[in-house]
Amino acid sequence: MFSSEEKKHYMELAFAEAEKAEAQDEVPIGAIVVDPEGQVIGRGYNRRELDNVATHHAEILAINEACKTLNSWRLIDCSLFVTLEPCAMCAGAIINARLKEVFYGAPDHKAGASGSVVDLFAVEKFNHHPQVIRGLYRDKASSMLTNFFRTIRAKQKEKKLKAKENKANSSQID
Amino acid sequence: MFSSEEKKHYMELAFAEAEKAEAQDEVPIGAIVVDPEGQVIGRGYNRRELDNVATHHAEILAINEACKTLNSWRLIDCSLFVTLEPCAMCAGAIINARLKEVFYGAPDHKAGASGSVVDLFAVEKFNHHPQVIRGLYRDKASSMLTNFFRTIRAKQKEKKLKAKENKANSSQID
Repeated sequence: MFSSEEKKHYMELAFAEAEKAEAQDEVPIGAIVVDPEGQVIGRGYNRRELDNVATHHAEILAINEACKTLNSWRLIDCSLFVTLEPCAMCAGAIINARLKEVFYGAPDHKAGASGSVVDLFAVEKFNHHPQVIRGLYRDKASSMLTNFFRTIRAKQKEKKLKAKENKANSSQID
Repeated sequence: MFSSEEKKHYMELAFAEAEKAEAQDEVPIGAIVVDPEGQVIGRGYNRRELDNVATHHAEILAINEACKTLNSWRLIDCSLFVTLEPCAMCAGAIINARLKEVFYGAPDHKAGASGSVVDLFAVEKFNHHPQVIRGLYRDKASSMLTNFFRTIRAKQKEKKLKAKENKANSSQID
């Protein structure tokens, strides 16, 4: 059981990962894996566009690193902290890695696989059922994503406007 | 649309991947990704135990390679052939990579996420819905797995028997 302080600390580390994505114009999602002694054994941030690889979500990269740290595909009694609700792929990876528990920030109403669209952790027939703690620092997690997309849209609008101006200027010259 | 001959050819390539796993005492599951021109752009076989990484399923590795080949996380109009029904993680990866279609061999009654336990490809709210062709060379795919586990069990039985014999011999010497 983590204390409130510990949960805050680990979520801050997940946010720090998300910020690494944001700094590279990538959708800011970050994740970390913590072992039973409280050591961070895996970190990851969304690199889908950066690497041009569909599977390079924060959770997958954090799980891969944790498996390499422990030299084990079973992350028994380990916990995952992630800023956004895992998608089906990541929820499946969490089950496959036998993670004990998942703490996540914002819900994902389009692709969330921990209750928002489907709930893979609640499928009885699966052989592992991680505990889920939803909405940890949800407001911060949600606003981080909202702000990112708002900035992206503003940039795109500005780009379009500039292209229009350039076109108007060049047609005046003609 | 692939002809029967083409489908046979691609499934044979997926089986060849599965055989690479089997040759290394790994559960034999193989996958390939084919581009719209019919070129194989990604191959993978189950390496979970070999690499000690929970996410190293055949489909994930084949998708990763295909993304790198095309330098794109979107595998538009590409097809995946896999010997076993994808699990939740791999079905999620197939959706994330926007694969057009999935051909698979044997059903997975314990973890299958394309109809056997859950059907992620049929979740309306998800933003992509690959076409699924089930049971392609199902008998070969199923017997490959059945034989593998039968051999594993026989080896374990033999090992136990030998350990018992050794114990009996050493107690006679005492």
